[in-house]
Amino acid sequence: MGIDNLSTGHLSSIPQGVDFFEMGAHNLEIIELLEKYDFNAIFHIAGQSGGEPSYSDPIYDLQANAQSTLLLLEYLKKSSCKKIIYASTVSVYGEPVNYSSLTEDMPTNPKSLYGTSKLASEQYLRIFAEQFGINCISLRLFNIYGPGQNLDNLQQGMTSIYLSQAIRNKHVLIKGSKKRFRDLVYIDDAVDAFVKMLNDKYTGYHVYNVSKNKKIYVSEIVKEIQDNLPFPITIEYKGSTPGDVLGYTGNFDKLNRASNWFPNIEMNDGIKRMTDWALNKELILNQI
Amino acid sequence: MGIDNLSTGHLSSIPQGVDFFEMGAHNLEIIELLEKYDFNAIFHIAGQSGGEPSYSDPIYDLQANAQSTLLLLEYLKKSSCKKIIYASTVSVYGEPVNYSSLTEDMPTNPKSLYGTSKLASEQYLRIFAEQFGINCISLRLFNIYGPGQNLDNLQQGMTSIYLSQAIRNKHVLIKGSKKRFRDLVYIDDAVDAFVKMLNDKYTGYHVYNVSKNKKIYVSEIVKEIQDNLPFPITIEYKGSTPGDVLGYTGNFDKLNRASNWFPNIEMNDGIKRMTDWALNKELILNQI
Repeated sequence: MGIDNLSTGHLSSIPQGVDFFEMGAHNLEIIELLEKYDFNAIFHIAGQSGGEPSYSDPIYDLQANAQSTLLLLEYLKKSSCKKIIYASTVSVYGEPVNYSSLTEDMPTNPKSLYGTSKLASEQYLRIFAEQFGINCISLRLFNIYGPGQNLDNLQQGMTSIYLSQAIRNKHVLIKGSKKRFRDLVYIDDAVDAFVKMLNDKYTGYHVYNVSKNKKIYVSEIVKEIQDNLPFPITIEYKGSTPGDVLGYTGNFDKLNRASNWFPNIEMNDGIKRMTDWALNKELILNQI
Repeated sequence: MGIDNLSTGHLSSIPQGVDFFEMGAHNLEIIELLEKYDFNAIFHIAGQSGGEPSYSDPIYDLQANAQSTLLLLEYLKKSSCKKIIYASTVSVYGEPVNYSSLTEDMPTNPKSLYGTSKLASEQYLRIFAEQFGINCISLRLFNIYGPGQNLDNLQQGMTSIYLSQAIRNKHVLIKGSKKRFRDLVYIDDAVDAFVKMLNDKYTGYHVYNVSKNKKIYVSEIVKEIQDNLPFPITIEYKGSTPGDVLGYTGNFDKLNRASNWFPNIEMNDGIKRMTDWALNKELILNQI
């Protein structure tokens, strides 16, 4: 079964055959609902996943990210299901002292409200693993991009924000410096990490980076989008976002050693696939 | 003015002349209420302050501790008041690698749900200081004890739990090992730290330990209570509390350097004062 409040997702993205409930994962009634089912594992990929929106509604951010985790852990404590895989984030690191090759043992010092609520979730997972025998994985997702991202949401997902503006306005307004850099992971590679963890017979608490270990400047992301479009676009850099960081690249050795995970899709290939998908989608929408 | 939901406190503890409101600090309506006033500073000493209760109601713990801080910071962001002094806790350190002389730069790795929600608050304070110019202090309180503690609450405050049982049952049931140790700070010394910070012209974010730097074993605390009572008591060690740690002692050098703060009251003197207060209080209650 699946639960989503559809705050940023679409009903059409829910696969056929999934017993679906429209509900926020931070809703106190979620425990009662879950108790009607048997699970082998829970993927906790719900929540509020943008730095910028965490400032416009900090309470929602805290509840959607930390309260939701706590409720799921309370359920797992009572249930026979003892496995949860959590979509955490690179934002728990904050502004790293070293910008490159972040490893999981480095200090966590979130710079955004979003990073704070996600880090609280990680702490809860560790505590429930240590004290109540629930097997918990935190996957610290770096910058995930790819087909399926919500092009209507201009506050979450750097690549999709730029792509959406490029296609719809033929103009990209970038909040922050072009010298910022990120470590981009294609959606299929990220999903593969979750599936590998689902099949893994781990116990206790583990945290893994889901990164590609490649430094990609913001300007390169936009350039790649530009090169894949059949029409010209203009680009403007202006303003900034609170809690935004200069950049980072990750180190995925730990996940690779644990499960043989490897991010296969290169950025130019991934952005081409995503741009083709977005162009096709917008074309269909405009024909309706 | 003052706000308290009286979940563990008493109306009789509110000083005369304080404009008092019975409300949880995590109540979303608190911002609207605060906007009717002008403040020089806010003391955020509200919240849920026990490790054990954080397991019986984790959602309340998260809301009372972290959501409350976020709401106060949202208020301060809009207000002309830019100063907040927060009652944080030694629990943010978790189970320290070194048990003695904890300093503020050591890793924070909470071992209880309570420590997690308090640490999230600290992160929020740091972020609002860095990004919105709000001057924030986190005072990491070690084990505070003294007259005024709630003797009816057997889930919060090691010294008052033992003292309450000793006086009311002449029997003390201690959950956990007698080899555990703590660093006890008398209430008047703790209050003095808050007052010093109120008068301090700091800017930005600062975190300080409020400790006495003395290792006191659990068995010593009970012995001291025993020695101050006019009747015999029995002592029993049994069970444990989730998230409980073996022990720690702090280092208050940073606060001493910043404000000349010093914890004056010795443990034997403090426990004597507290025992006398409790005996007197119970005597009055029983005569009514």
